[in-house]
Amino acid sequence: SLAHRCHHRSSAMLDMPFLPFCAFLATLGLLCVAMVGTWCQHWRGGFSLDGSSRTFNWHPVLMVTGLVVLYGAAALVYRIPNTWSGPKLPWKVLHGSLALGAFVLAVLGLAAVFCFHNSQGTPNMYSLHSWMGLGTVLLFSCQWAMGFGAFLLPWAPTWLRALYKPIHVFFGSTILLLSVASCVSGINEKLFFSLKNGTMQYKLLPAEAVFANTLGLLILIFGVLVVAALARPSWKRPDSDSPDSRQVRDTLGG
Amino acid sequence: SLAHRCHHRSSAMLDMPFLPFCAFLATLGLLCVAMVGTWCQHWRGGFSLDGSSRTFNWHPVLMVTGLVVLYGAAALVYRIPNTWSGPKLPWKVLHGSLALGAFVLAVLGLAAVFCFHNSQGTPNMYSLHSWMGLGTVLLFSCQWAMGFGAFLLPWAPTWLRALYKPIHVFFGSTILLLSVASCVSGINEKLFFSLKNGTMQYKLLPAEAVFANTLGLLILIFGVLVVAALARPSWKRPDSDSPDSRQVRDTLGG
Repeated sequence: SLAHRCHHRSSAMLDMPFLPFCAFLATLGLLCVAMVGTWCQHWRGGFSLDGSSRTFNWHPVLMVTGLVVLYGAAALVYRIPNTWSGPKLPWKVLHGSLALGAFVLAVLGLAAVFCFHNSQGTPNMYSLHSWMGLGTVLLFSCQWAMGFGAFLLPWAPTWLRALYKPIHVFFGSTILLLSVASCVSGINEKLFFSLKNGTMQYKLLPAEAVFANTLGLLILIFGVLVVAALARPSWKRPDSDSPDSRQVRDTLGG
Repeated sequence: SLAHRCHHRSSAMLDMPFLPFCAFLATLGLLCVAMVGTWCQHWRGGFSLDGSSRTFNWHPVLMVTGLVVLYGAAALVYRIPNTWSGPKLPWKVLHGSLALGAFVLAVLGLAAVFCFHNSQGTPNMYSLHSWMGLGTVLLFSCQWAMGFGAFLLPWAPTWLRALYKPIHVFFGSTILLLSVASCVSGINEKLFFSLKNGTMQYKLLPAEAVFANTLGLLILIFGVLVVAALARPSWKRPDSDSPDSRQVRDTLGG
């Protein structure tokens, strides 16, 4: 299409194909999941459902897997060029299903930390990490419900879809960045809680601290790259209702 | 201009004038500066240069003021419609000067925490917060030096400016988001350090914790709103070399 050609030409100087970038992102995302699992299994005692710190360990694993990696995959669905032709409904269902999966993992991740706190007699929801994290999940629940109501219910009016779409796109990136900031503050806090005795103090930078700090930086890089990929004009669905393509049609008198 | 009219029309449904939004952002930014100062003055013992925790207190104040609020002001210079006509150089100098001011405050903020650690015998650079924060300041130093070399030195070739500009814009938003994530993890960590005795424990959510958690959320909202304002097509300088406006010129055969 013309819009696509224009986008393409305008960004030719820094052009990069989407799919190899996406494969790199997938590798980075899976590495984050593997590393958070390794951290909890190897250094923090593994997993259980008994209310101990081994129940808590589900919290970082489920949050990184759901709210960062699976969420990132859901967000990028419409950037796959295969989705740009043919019926849109199957891709909408895929986008909504991946996001629902991410949301379910996030809710289970919240359940893990509430269960741990309650069985230890620790209050819930006092730290800045908890405020930001719960706020992120609440925003995500609104995002999913409003996306379902506006884009998947067949009787949603066109004007509502057009009005809500840029809001949905904006909060899509925002929620991912809030998730990443929540993960980083949570990893930082957990390392201060866990590493405080003898030669294992956080400030002495034992192997666990290097490993988990590196995990935090990789999560940051993953989040920034997903948001950058979402924002890149030449990777957007060219027939979408984004201002970019509408603007070209307007200019052509369409 | 035509580009401006097209941008304007395409986003008419959610239109909002830049300057009132900017006034709101300025208020929010000043509130963040006032709150971080109040936190350190009222609850953390105030400021000094003696290497005690009152030296540390300069760290949050300088980081929030420099790396978030002044940085945000620098980033938004080209969104002020007055900058869109007439010579560009004064605005470039303003943008570079505000960014340099932000950078100087950030370096002083680092000096405050290194001085505090050294005088207490605490190691530097072990926490995820410190890795992320120092990485952010290092990225910012590269961003400033490369921006100066490419956009302010009069002999920088046009092809270099065109090639580097989208990279500078991308890292501009990224560095702000990294700053915000650093601030949030730092506030969270500081509250765990400071609030651990008796009725003043963080987990009991004393007034200081509510105040500083709220500060963290306001910093997050400030950062997200600045990045959203930067990304908004209808607020971009219409004669810039962004893909959006070049695309319109291409479509018109310009």
